Amino acid sequence: MTTRNAGFVSLVGAGPGHPEHLTQKAVRRLGEADLVLHDALVSDGVLAFAAGAEFLCVGKRAGRPQTPQETIERLLIDAARRGRRVVRLKGGDPFVFGRGGEEALALSAAGIPFEVVPGLTTAVAAPALAGIPVTHRGTSSGFVVITAADEGACDATIEALPPGLLTLVAMMSVQSAGRLVGCLLARGWPAGTPAALVIGAATPRLWTWRGRLADLSRVVIPDHSADAPGTIVIGEVAALPIDLDEEGASSAAAVPS
Amino acid sequence: MTTRNAGFVSLVGAGPGHPEHLTQKAVRRLGEADLVLHDALVSDGVLAFAAGAEFLCVGKRAGRPQTPQETIERLLIDAARRGRRVVRLKGGDPFVFGRGGEEALALSAAGIPFEVVPGLTTAVAAPALAGIPVTHRGTSSGFVVITAADEGACDATIEALPPGLLTLVAMMSVQSAGRLVGCLLARGWPAGTPAALVIGAATPRLWTWRGRLADLSRVVIPDHSADAPGTIVIGEVAALPIDLDEEGASSAAAVPS
Repeated sequence: MTTRNAGFVSLVGAGPGHPEHLTQKAVRRLGEADLVLHDALVSDGVLAFAAGAEFLCVGKRAGRPQTPQETIERLLIDAARRGRRVVRLKGGDPFVFGRGGEEALALSAAGIPFEVVPGLTTAVAAPALAGIPVTHRGTSSGFVVITAADEGACDATIEALPPGLLTLVAMMSVQSAGRLVGCLLARGWPAGTPAALVIGAATPRLWTWRGRLADLSRVVIPDHSADAPGTIVIGEVAALPIDLDEEGASSAAAVPS
Repeated sequence: MTTRNAGFVSLVGAGPGHPEHLTQKAVRRLGEADLVLHDALVSDGVLAFAAGAEFLCVGKRAGRPQTPQETIERLLIDAARRGRRVVRLKGGDPFVFGRGGEEALALSAAGIPFEVVPGLTTAVAAPALAGIPVTHRGTSSGFVVITAADEGACDATIEALPPGLLTLVAMMSVQSAGRLVGCLLARGWPAGTPAALVIGAATPRLWTWRGRLADLSRVVIPDHSADAPGTIVIGEVAALPIDLDEEGASSAAAVPS
């Protein structure tokens, strides 16, 4: 059976930022792409792998609003129907707060062939590159990942979860941190619970803070990192003495880049 | 400043299985390695990238027990001190139930330069490649990742978490599934809650089951997949109609491998 129209869509995770954290399959699909629909936060170094592609930024950028989700899905479907090899490129993983599931359902309903190419989720990779393991024997036997985008679910999770039982990873804008800290303290998390904030992991805008939960809402972010996505980690793992530089290495002098 | 002894250790995640899911940095470090200490479940296709390295399997294999953690740490430290470029290669991500934190602390205490190279965690990638997004707008605003290896924390998490609030991802042997299902039903999760079991994701031993929570403990695994690591997903996202083949594609005929 041959297919005259060879168009298809790859839902690709770009990982936390640096091109070296792309998977080999992501690199290959970018290299084969005719069209790349990407979020605003995907770096130029990542896009450079799609040398033969047309680019369309569908994220929030330079004061312009995000392209509506239905429009993105329509663009994917139309391009694949015209026989184009399309990459839908998202920061992190497409299935972790990435709306990849919605796009997969839309493509499926439209009869468009598609695939999922997972990427490193920022929920795990941003803490890891800052030296924080989300699990650690004797300290944390599991982790929960939430976002501030859904305040109801975020509040219900914090209300249900006994303080300190699991590592809490919150993917959210730094502006939302104050509300999160208030909820956690009201739920009985000790003010001295170790906390960390990692902004712009694996990018030149990396900025990391470690301290006490109660101080998290008073952290002042440098201007150059202020609008990069943030990952908050709450729990004892945030206090493990593992110090890494911006490339995830313990010593730039001794670990070659 | 020059360093006469250029030895260092890379704690590398191999992702869920197939070499295409390795990151570019993981591939590069494997290519530069003198010595690779790897878990039993890392595939030959992944190890093939370390063409110039000596290999040491430190995982449980063919009836031989796992190398004790202290021995692994001693091997890493000694090899780096002899100037070797060492890769400690783990399935999934080194910091998600991978004991990477323990190794990072040991290396740090010994003054050995090291780095973290995150990999795709099976907790997210195994469901994704089976068509299950761990988050989905309107269905799941977050997820919790646990393991059966720590029964106390597993039980405490299930006890605390209101049924259906978050997607539950359990990384465990299939033998532990029965106990997990019993705990969830006792906590009030409806018997009909969608559930999925993904074994050997991104490997030739892939085997996927989808059904109802109450039926999960009665699933019969084919022999060839029985000892591969399993990822269990409980929650409405497991019922989303996204069907993918063993390469994460909706149609092998239309999406080129």
